[in-house]
Parts: sequence; structure tokens; C-alpha cells
Amino acid sequence: MTRATDAARDLTVAEVRLTPILVADPPLLNTQGVHQPYTPRLIVEVVTADGITGLGETYGDTKYLELARPLAERLTGRSVMDVNRLFATDLGVDESRISGRVDAGGLRGVQTADKLRLSVLSAFEVACLDALGRALGLPVHALLGGKVRDSVDYSAYLFYKWAAHPAGVPSEKDDWGAALDPAGVVEQARRFKERHGFTSFKLKGGVFPPEQEIAAVRALAEAFPGHPLRLDPNGAWSVETSVKVARELGDLLEYLEDPALGTPAMAEVAARTGVPLATNMCVTTFAEIKEAFAEDAVQVVLSDHHYWGGLRNTQHLAALCDAFGVGVSMHSNTHLGISLAAMTHVASTVPNLHHACDTHYPWQSEDVLTERLTFEGGRVAVSDAPGLGVALDRDELARLHRRWAADDGSLRDRDDAAAMRVAEPGWVTPAVPRW
Amino acid sequence: MTRATDAARDLTVAEVRLTPILVADPPLLNTQGVHQPYTPRLIVEVVTADGITGLGETYGDTKYLELARPLAERLTGRSVMDVNRLFATDLGVDESRISGRVDAGGLRGVQTADKLRLSVLSAFEVACLDALGRALGLPVHALLGGKVRDSVDYSAYLFYKWAAHPAGVPSEKDDWGAALDPAGVVEQARRFKERHGFTSFKLKGGVFPPEQEIAAVRALAEAFPGHPLRLDPNGAWSVETSVKVARELGDLLEYLEDPALGTPAMAEVAARTGVPLATNMCVTTFAEIKEAFAEDAVQVVLSDHHYWGGLRNTQHLAALCDAFGVGVSMHSNTHLGISLAAMTHVASTVPNLHHACDTHYPWQSEDVLTERLTFEGGRVAVSDAPGLGVALDRDELARLHRRWAADDGSLRDRDDAAAMRVAEPGWVTPAVPRW
Repeated sequence: MTRATDAARDLTVAEVRLTPILVADPPLLNTQGVHQPYTPRLIVEVVTADGITGLGETYGDTKYLELARPLAERLTGRSVMDVNRLFATDLGVDESRISGRVDAGGLRGVQTADKLRLSVLSAFEVACLDALGRALGLPVHALLGGKVRDSVDYSAYLFYKWAAHPAGVPSEKDDWGAALDPAGVVEQARRFKERHGFTSFKLKGGVFPPEQEIAAVRALAEAFPGHPLRLDPNGAWSVETSVKVARELGDLLEYLEDPALGTPAMAEVAARTGVPLATNMCVTTFAEIKEAFAEDAVQVVLSDHHYWGGLRNTQHLAALCDAFGVGVSMHSNTHLGISLAAMTHVASTVPNLHHACDTHYPWQSEDVLTERLTFEGGRVAVSDAPGLGVALDRDELARLHRRWAADDGSLRDRDDAAAMRVAEPGWVTPAVPRW
Repeated sequence: MTRATDAARDLTVAEVRLTPILVADPPLLNTQGVHQPYTPRLIVEVVTADGITGLGETYGDTKYLELARPLAERLTGRSVMDVNRLFATDLGVDESRISGRVDAGGLRGVQTADKLRLSVLSAFEVACLDALGRALGLPVHALLGGKVRDSVDYSAYLFYKWAAHPAGVPSEKDDWGAALDPAGVVEQARRFKERHGFTSFKLKGGVFPPEQEIAAVRALAEAFPGHPLRLDPNGAWSVETSVKVARELGDLLEYLEDPALGTPAMAEVAARTGVPLATNMCVTTFAEIKEAFAEDAVQVVLSDHHYWGGLRNTQHLAALCDAFGVGVSMHSNTHLGISLAAMTHVASTVPNLHHACDTHYPWQSEDVLTERLTFEGGRVAVSDAPGLGVALDRDELARLHRRWAADDGSLRDRDDAAAMRVAEPGWVTPAVPRW
């Protein structure tokens, strides 16, 4: 039996609170550099006239904040139900002016004004859905047509990493240890499995020469027979290298993620190998789909509700992929529990979600929730509580915001190459293909 | 200010009522024959444990009823929020056995088991959304993310028609008169404009040789300068005829709808003319999209929430079309006010709806609502009342059901060719292309 609760509610947005924060991030390596010790996120609170608060979360870099402020003004006085119109709102900001600087690392695919805008809007959509669900006594998944599964499967997200951030750099300690070779990667995977029960593994590659990463995948396959494996070098390889790795790893991989950059390169790799290619770089906007699908460049699209523009757009994307026989799963960037809850709600409603979703969440030791979400057997249970089913820890939010406010600006825009230069002063962002 | 009303509600489905009816239909001509004097529809009522009733409507032919009964059983005891799971329900019916007989006329495109199933499910989805909206005090559009426009533009649906059904055949009279030549078509359009304010016109073609229909469109263009015009012969033409008509009518047409049958023919017509091609026959399921879009066979998809599988699927389709630069509008078959309300709600939420929607509604003198929906300036206002915003007239529903129950079976499955044989005993469904 499902119950809608609560009496008459005024769903008008009375206030929108934007709180930029810095959250601890371990020294995880990728082809651009290393995660900074603290990464910016933006927490959005949408408060209705009745005092119901809905939560959203997105990237917190300066350029997102610049768009979030006018959007917060536009939303105030409108209804939390009015999400579709929100997406048509003119923010009065020259988005093109700031789009080139969105993601210096380029790890999130193409950089466009529209994608930047959607990345901000998504947090507002989630906050509105959370508020609406809380007001009505309905879980967010019910507002999306209802869950088709009771828990969502996630994959362990393995990274090459240092034991600690460089000496002298303010940072939080983590207990994961270093992982810089196959043995270290296998040990990390073992801890992921022990702690959270994950049954599939993704290795962030593009850090070491391909043969070392091939060895790491082989080691994982040997240590965890039958567990789906993925390798993601973030487009660091040439077509020839990609084809070579795909052929060598062959049947060991569930899929190979973004081996090379761009639709032509991905299409050539796909045509020359039998390994499915997944992407969160080649196809990250609706505008990129037509060409990529026509060229059979990708076999699995890793959706990300942040930059695809929210939960309903994620459902649209999934239906689109289904129509074209393309698989769908979920990408993750450093995020907290609000976004994990949002991912879980929408993932629970997508019938054709046939691969475990990615999540960085186990790497985040800090969160703004009173209670962390947990993985059981690698799965997150879908909450049937009103809204997203999570509660804000205001003290922790304030603490992480103070960290952001105290920052001199060097951490307010994520820059993995800058973080790497602290350890290796000569480091420059590698040209691609790197190998 | 938007308000959600009502206290705690039990959203469990306690009962599902299925009421097949026969509704009066004027003698409208198409390439297959003529509308029968009465056409079958199915009215679905979903009743929650708290006694809230949601309404849905779909095709009422026998084969739809066969699927609706097990679906009603499966839905009982579940929540009206549980729509996504409803679509995964095994109905325990061999749908393939009955799929070939769904639509003898073939005017609704491909006939598949899945499409049949979606056509039935759509009425249940709409009824669940209506019930949920009523329970929560929210309009259906709010459950779909909110309207982006306050009224939805419809097109006048012109038909060649007889003044009356054949003598001796039980039927209801209509006051539209005959329309069998350009003057009759223009007169019909004038009445449509006077009565409902429509500012665009669609002529159902495929009835007379193309030159006569070209003359009718020219007459419309002369009588209503600047009004968008459409012509839809339901695939009755060869590629050569289609190209010839497209070239002759050229700039007079907003679009040409389904001139020829099938993706290869449509693609060839599209390649050889500059007139956009619309369809509700070439692309009527998600499975047909990939090939049709790859071949650039259609420029506008006319969605139909009945056979695309409901309101959320219609939103998915619209997003898909947007990603591929394909236009979207809405198809209509003979329907009543429940479906018009559902069409209006979902249409109000689709940002990229750039063409007026089709509707047969003005041709239906009977309805099961206490109050008919109205067109002002060709537009239907989007209701902000709870649910669909319509109320059932139980006496009228009972009366139309008695008509269905009293029928000897000859009208329970729509058959335009059979109706034509009453007037022309030698009539056989024309082979296509007819011209």
C-alpha cells in the first residue's frame, strides 16, 4: 500500500539557498593529473512557502555558481512543479562567455554553454522533485513513474592512487593506501568488495602506459573471476593503441570506456574490435547522439543526470538509447549523497539499465547528510521515503562551506593538472592521444 | 501559487472498470473506405482504495479488450504510482496471436504485438495519472514536469464526407453536410474555423485521384491565405505520384503526411522534394525510428499517446525527435474527451511541439464527459484542475455501453472497408499504391 500524506500545501518556492562547499577528495590519479585534496560542490536548497526543503547537488566550480545565482532568483516565486518551464528560463547570463572554462580537464566531454546550463539546472530539478515529493509524501521515483527495481547495482570505481596528497599540502587522510601497480589495484578492489560488496569493477586508466593497465585488468580478472570489468583511460589512447588493448583484453572486459577521443576515432575502434565501447566523453549531450549513433561509435552511453539535465532527461536518454539498441548505464564524477540518492531514484525507473552504475561515493569520506547512503552487495536500496529520502546535516554543510569561504580561490575550480604540479612541478596536461 | 490538496490517501488500486462503448461517427472517407456509423472505444476507470477514480480511453476493438481484461486484474492491488512496472507486466496473453488483426485498415501503421500492448497500457497509464493527480490535487501536466504553455494548438481535420451514412443503416445525423469536391472542403473548413477558430487545416486525402485533392488544397490556400495546410493520403500514392504532388503543391503545404508507404518510399520522396514529410504510419513505434531517421525518411513524427504507450513515452519520443532534429506533432484517431484532455496535458509539457496537433474531436457529437472540452481560436486551454480535469457522465457512458452490448458484433471491430461495402457492394480495400 502506498500513501500520499500531508494536507494542503503551498508549493511556491519562497527561497533558494545556494551553498558552495569544498569536500575532501583522495589523491586519485587520471590522465590529466590527480584529484585535488578538496573539490568544489554546490548544494541547492529549494524552500517552499510551507517550509518544505528540497535538496539538489551539482558541480561547484565558479562558472556553475555564476549561473546558479540568477537561476535561484528566477525560481523564487514559481512552483516546484514548474520544472519544464524552468528549463526554458532565460538566465540573463552570456553562457557562451564562460562555457570554454567549464572543465579545464576535459574529462567530462564536450564543453558547451547548453551543457553548462543543464549541469546547473539539474540540481534545481532534483531539488524541486525532492521538495515536491516531501510535500506530497511520495518518493522521487514515484514522481518519475515508479521504480521498476528495489535496489540499484553500482560498480566499484578503482583508481590508481597515492597513499596521500603531497606533504605540506592541507588535506584529509584516507585509509585506502597506495595503488600504483596490479597488486595495489587488486588490493583496492578487495577492500571495495569487503566494505561494500561490489561485484563489478571499473579501473580508471590512462595513467600508466597501456601494458601496465592491461596487466592490472588481467590481475583483477584472475583475482575476481566472473566479475564484470571495465577500463576507462579517458580518451588517452590512439586508435591503434585502443584496438591493441581491446584485442588483448578481449573477453575480460564488460566494456571499454572512452579509449579514444571523438566520434570518428571511437567509431574506428568499434569497427575493428568486438569489445563494446562505453562513453561519457564522446556522447554527453543530446546534440552529439545523431552522429555517434549513425557511426556506431558507442555501444553503451553512460548517462549523468548532472550534465544531461536532470532526472527526466535521463529517462528520455534511456528511452532514446533503447530505441537505437544502445546500452545505458551511469557515469559518476566526485559527488555526495544527495546526488547518489538522485542517481538511485532515476536508475530505479529505467527499465533498460543493464549495467551497474559508476559512483565515486565510497571515496568521499565527507558528506552533508545526517546519515550516509550505504551499499549492500554493491547495491543501494531505493528509498520509498518522501522525496529523495535523505536529510541535510546543517552543521556539516556549514563546516564545508566555511572551508570553501576560507579558500584563497585555488581550490574553487577543480584542476587536476594543477594538483599534479604540486608533486611534479614540470607536469603539463598531456596531449592526447598520450599513447 | 500552486497548491497540492487532500490529506493522507491510499493510492492502491481497489478496482478497475472497463467499459466498451460505441460512439457515433460521421461518414468520413479515407483511402480504405468510410468510417462506420459507430466506432468502438474503451473507457478505463481506475478506482483507488479511497474511492478516487482516474479515467483513461483507448481503442475499443475486440483485440484491445482481450488485453485490457488481464491488465485490469494485474493492476488491482498495486499503486497508481506504479506505472513503470505496469509496462513490464506479463499479461498472460499470447499477444502475437492477435496482433495481426489489430487494425484491418492499416491506417495506424505497422501492426505488432508490442504496439497492441502499448495501445492498451496507455489507457491505464492515463487513468493512473488522472487518479494520482486527483488524489494529490495536482493536474496531470504537473506530474509530467509541468506545462510550458497554457493552451495547445490544434488543427482542423478536414475529411471528404457524405452528407449521411447510407439509407437504412442505423446512424446519428450530423449537420456538416457533404464535402466531395474543393468547394465542399472549403465550406467544411469555413465551418471549422467559425465553430472552433482553427487556423490550420489538414485534409484527409487518398480518397480521390491526386489531381482532385491538389485542387482542394489549392482552394483552401486561396480561401485561407497564410493558414498552414496539410494533406494526408495515408500512403495511397506511389513515389512518383508523391513527388509530383509535392512539387505541385510546393510551398502551399506545412507538410505532406504519409504520401507513400514504408521507409524506403518515404525516404525517396523526401530526397526528391523540399516538402517536409510527416508520419503516423511510417514511424509508429520506437523500433522503427532508427532506420527511418537514418534514411531521413520523415521530418515530422506525429506522436499518438495511445499507440506510443502513454504520456511519458510521448515525452521520450519528443526528446528523441529533438535530438535528431526531427519535428514532432500529434496524430489523432476517432477519440473522445478523455483522450483529448490527455493529449492536451502531455502536449503542454513538450517544448519542441512546433506544429498544431490533429484531433478528430469536433467530429464526435457524443462524449462521456459531463462537459465537453472546447476550442477557442483552435486551442484547448490546459487545465490546472486535479488530474485530467474532466468528469465522467455515467448516464451517457451507460447509454453508449448499451449500444455496444446490443450490437451483433458487426461494429465492435472498426472496419472502414466493410462500411464502404454497404454503399458500394463491390468495394474491396484498394491495393497500395492506389495512384
